[in-house]
Amino acid sequence: MRVHTENIRVRYVETDQMGVAHHASFLPWFELGRTGLLRATGNTYRELEERGFQLPVIEYNCRLVRGAHYDDELLVATRVSALGSRKVDFTYQVTCDGALLATGYTRHVCVSPSHDIRRFPPEVLDALALYRD
Amino acid sequence: MRVHTENIRVRYVETDQMGVAHHASFLPWFELGRTGLLRATGNTYRELEERGFQLPVIEYNCRLVRGAHYDDELLVATRVSALGSRKVDFTYQVTCDGALLATGYTRHVCVSPSHDIRRFPPEVLDALALYRD
Amino acid sequence: MRVHTENIRVRYVETDQMGVAHHASFLPWFELGRTGLLRATGNTYRELEERGFQLPVIEYNCRLVRGAHYDDELLVATRVSALGSRKVDFTYQVTCDGALLATGYTRHVCVSPSHDIRRFPPEVLDALALYRD
Amino acid sequence: MRVHTENIRVRYVETDQMGVAHHASFLPWFELGRTGLLRATGNTYRELEERGFQLPVIEYNCRLVRGAHYDDELLVATRVSALGSRKVDFTYQVTCDGALLATGYTRHVCVSPSHDIRRFPPEVLDALALYRD
Repeated sequence: MRVHTENIRVRYVETDQMGVAHHASFLPWFELGRTGLLRATGNTYRELEERGFQLPVIEYNCRLVRGAHYDDELLVATRVSALGSRKVDFTYQVTCDGALLATGYTRHVCVSPSHDIRRFPPEVLDALALYRD
Repeated sequence: MRVHTENIRVRYVETDQMGVAHHASFLPWFELGRTGLLRATGNTYRELEERGFQLPVIEYNCRLVRGAHYDDELLVATRVSALGSRKVDFTYQVTCDGALLATGYTRHVCVSPSHDIRRFPPEVLDALALYRD
Repeated sequence: MRVHTENIRVRYVETDQMGVAHHASFLPWFELGRTGLLRATGNTYRELEERGFQLPVIEYNCRLVRGAHYDDELLVATRVSALGSRKVDFTYQVTCDGALLATGYTRHVCVSPSHDIRRFPPEVLDALALYRD
Repeated sequence: MRVHTENIRVRYVETDQMGVAHHASFLPWFELGRTGLLRATGNTYRELEERGFQLPVIEYNCRLVRGAHYDDELLVATRVSALGSRKVDFTYQVTCDGALLATGYTRHVCVSPSHDIRRFPPEVLDALALYRD
């Protein structure tokens, strides 16, 4: 079972007046985690969309343990926690210097540009299966 | 039991190349919902922070049913779903012309500027209790 | 000569750790100003895009005088400062309680969905001309 | 004369329904350019703020030549175009595979946390001078 790790540095624009990254910032970081995972398998999300496969988010969740500060170097560990022929769940763990900042998951369906649910291409399904925990 | 409703128009900047609002956009809308609820009780979140009470998000969740399109007029209905002396959960329902777009919740703790957990001011606790479902 | 005024409340997510709205936040506010102006003329930007007219930004500028704070109620005054058959400049003045926060402008060309430069529809050109200063 | 170059990949959340990155996205990229430049000199912006020096933006400008697409790898070239004891201008050039996407500049003053204008630390002034064009 593989885990994909992505390095992300917290941007100034992502902070809010509490002095930490706004809680919504974790969603773009999760997005970088799962698209990084796809890239690592040789199937970029960009190419998937160009081939007519979109992966809209139908549910997301995030638990925040500690704040992420400006300029912090984060590690986003991404796994596949559920996988079907037409849907996939990713789970995320965000850490900074070994300390856990947040965990979360996103749920996606595979659809065509006209929003019809469709099967993943077989090679994408196989690639995602390598990261299933 | 009261519900607070907030009107929000989808901004162009909130859309992504799928042609609908990016899934992370719901979190600022939820934020407008709960701060609108607080404002309706006469306790703005701005004043709460100035008095030394912060309400960081410690968990959030969102289920997306339909996409929100640019310029759509959304209604965010906000309720209090759990309330303690030091924590509160809000639930949200986002609709457009009566159609459900998304539901979600956020969980918050009440902390001081130095991040110590503290009790809500009594009048804020009473005000939030009016929206408990 | 008309001016369009749009009311905007500063969102929490728009602040950064300096305690004011991030400087990039003014661009979505300018966007609300000019799309509000279009709406006031009876030509929403949404309908323009649906009819095959897009108005991408080709230049923008902003001078920041004072910070915009969370929950501030801003007034965005929008004018048309230059107008041609295929391009338009908007200027913006952002105030809060009468105090000037920022000024700026954006420059746009009218293009088709395939990015060819095209003329504004005549009724849109006439409508924009009413706001030319 | 030195130029700092920063590599940035366009995020999905940065796109809008025109199918390219929203024009406001260039500002966070400029921010990464100038903070990368500072980091390269051994003076991170984070440390500057911790030492009581802030560099708020007082003006910005951007000219957009071509759209930046999702997943594009951008190069942000940053130079110092004007430098005083208490203010600095940065200019930016954003390219993708050698093609120019945008140019821009930002103007900053050096202030204390209480917003009083103050001089740059001498070593920061010297470091910035190395990038003056």
